[in-house]
Amino acid sequence: MARSKTRIVRAVFPNSTNHYDTLFGGITLKWMDEVAFITATRFGRKKFVTVSSDRVDFNMPIPGGHFAELIGEVVKVGKSSLIVDVTLMLEAMYEEGQVEAVKGSFTLVAINDERKAVPIFS
Amino acid sequence: MARSKTRIVRAVFPNSTNHYDTLFGGITLKWMDEVAFITATRFGRKKFVTVSSDRVDFNMPIPGGHFAELIGEVVKVGKSSLIVDVTLMLEAMYEEGQVEAVKGSFTLVAINDERKAVPIFS
Amino acid sequence: MARSKTRIVRAVFPNSTNHYDTLFGGITLKWMDEVAFITATRFGRKKFVTVSSDRVDFNMPIPGGHFAELIGEVVKVGKSSLIVDVTLMLEAMYEEGQVEAVKGSFTLVAINDERKAVPIFS
Amino acid sequence: MARSKTRIVRAVFPNSTNHYDTLFGGITLKWMDEVAFITATRFGRKKFVTVSSDRVDFNMPIPGGHFAELIGEVVKVGKSSLIVDVTLMLEAMYEEGQVEAVKGSFTLVAINDERKAVPIFS
Amino acid sequence: MARSKTRIVRAVFPNSTNHYDTLFGGITLKWMDEVAFITATRFGRKKFVTVSSDRVDFNMPIPGGHFAELIGEVVKVGKSSLIVDVTLMLEAMYEEGQVEAVKGSFTLVAINDERKAVPIFS
Amino acid sequence: MARSKTRIVRAVFPNSTNHYDTLFGGITLKWMDEVAFITATRFGRKKFVTVSSDRVDFNMPIPGGHFAELIGEVVKVGKSSLIVDVTLMLEAMYEEGQVEAVKGSFTLVAINDERKAVPIFS
Repeated sequence: MARSKTRIVRAVFPNSTNHYDTLFGGITLKWMDEVAFITATRFGRKKFVTVSSDRVDFNMPIPGGHFAELIGEVVKVGKSSLIVDVTLMLEAMYEEGQVEAVKGSFTLVAINDERKAVPIFS
Repeated sequence: MARSKTRIVRAVFPNSTNHYDTLFGGITLKWMDEVAFITATRFGRKKFVTVSSDRVDFNMPIPGGHFAELIGEVVKVGKSSLIVDVTLMLEAMYEEGQVEAVKGSFTLVAINDERKAVPIFS
Repeated sequence: MARSKTRIVRAVFPNSTNHYDTLFGGITLKWMDEVAFITATRFGRKKFVTVSSDRVDFNMPIPGGHFAELIGEVVKVGKSSLIVDVTLMLEAMYEEGQVEAVKGSFTLVAINDERKAVPIFS
Repeated sequence: MARSKTRIVRAVFPNSTNHYDTLFGGITLKWMDEVAFITATRFGRKKFVTVSSDRVDFNMPIPGGHFAELIGEVVKVGKSSLIVDVTLMLEAMYEEGQVEAVKGSFTLVAINDERKAVPIFS
Repeated sequence: MARSKTRIVRAVFPNSTNHYDTLFGGITLKWMDEVAFITATRFGRKKFVTVSSDRVDFNMPIPGGHFAELIGEVVKVGKSSLIVDVTLMLEAMYEEGQVEAVKGSFTLVAINDERKAVPIFS
Repeated sequence: MARSKTRIVRAVFPNSTNHYDTLFGGITLKWMDEVAFITATRFGRKKFVTVSSDRVDFNMPIPGGHFAELIGEVVKVGKSSLIVDVTLMLEAMYEEGQVEAVKGSFTLVAINDERKAVPIFS
């Protein structure tokens, strides 16, 4: 599991913000799903698709001009599906430290070319 | 509630697909959150932010060259928060009919300029 | 014709605005053409391409932090071409009501895989 | 007028195409409007906004993997408005020569900070 | 060489700026590479790929609400590779004149379908 | 220096590829510059701007449907400027292992609000 842990740091620029100058919620979810997909694929080295995003909590806004570090981690593995927890850590540009701003989990399933579920280990 | 019901139809072009030529899950979530935000704002005519996306189920892939109709509807209203259900209906380009492909719900809260929760009706 | 009527609501965020903080005219036209394409395809359930955009009038600017509702409607049908009127209704976020901000019409033609015009009804 | 003539060459990559692998009509219009805006601004060195796009003819598709050269030219000047003709020349990557693929004209008006029309020459 | 000289003018809008309201360096490099690719392809009418970007100097920031004119020019031609100089000229919207803001050079090589280097003239 | 080391993994989807279905060189440079900017800022916790990208070598193409892991590392620190090396590691989706595909370095300078160079440590 440790090997598949995936990190993406992004700078929040105007092309990702809403008119309140905070990261638009839809972009947050897009970034989280990309991390979940990469984490799952690196874990299983199979074709994975998202079957559900489970509860995602937005604890605080992510202001423009900040960094967002997204961290994906496989937390549970079934026969053909697995769960990836994704955390978005908010980091100011000119100060040390991070706080957890958003947290959610995603379930992905391994599939073959006919889109049938296949075992992750085989 | 009926008045705030919001519809967005999108054509799935290569700029939104993954390398399997299906709509990337992250884009699906981005579109759903945008619909949820518009639906909530039209209902309450206040400043709303997403506090959580609750379970979102991806029942089938959305292939490139199809339409996706997203429908947002307020289903529950509290003092300062509300729940919006968002459904993505998949529609082939050259055939009548739609099938439910993705469904989820989003909780949004009305806030003031200091980002404190405020009553939706006041 | 009623069945093909297509609605798209968009929130105007910084990624679509010019440096006057109003919706960039080019984005307006892009959104209108997407609505025209979907409306035509839903009407005829054939492969359609835009052959011309007829006069498009921009009556007022669409400021950032507003909604734009685009409505496409088939208004005239020929043998292999049809005309779609597209209206952009401007809607403030925190007030009821819409005003017509942009209006134009687009001519699309049904084609086959060799890009020859084909009858819409056949 | 010659000094304001503006040229933009773009490569047509998958992020701009529809599912027929040709340049999406909405992107064509977006690029044309951007050229019209730059051409008008360079001519008058004032704040300009698009008031209408007049007829735009799409004579042939622009396939992926081709170049599109957009050329804007001021063709008529009134007191506070002017007309810019925009031509999109299609150019294959591995052959000399260009053909006119799309042609249209745009009317822009010079405005002040209160969005009132102002004379272009003053 | 003169025939392949390529010009692209872009308006700097919020979707390309960082949170200092200046053109994000990464977008600058993206625009420069696109110009280098088009210039090389027009010169050799072969399939070209970038093998290196040589030193690129950012002499001054490009503020939002300005124009950036990118000019690509072939300056050296070898057997299967060539060098394109790309200059970004900064132009205020409401004043005549341009200043050189960024300058760099790119080496591209002509390849065949198996990605082997091929002579530019053959 | 170790603390500022920054990693971004991206999946290469059609919105980032050219018509050869490989990552467009301009997008590669955009991603590398974003990593360089984040790495520098995390190291110095000051406002940084790119003053030059030094030689960037593209050793092999990055095909669609692969991962690209970008790693930024501060390698040299002067009074107000520093150098960040950025490496792009190519990783197949369904196999372990990475190969170095692109490598370059970027010089950034710490500035104050008047855009004057300032000491990194002060």
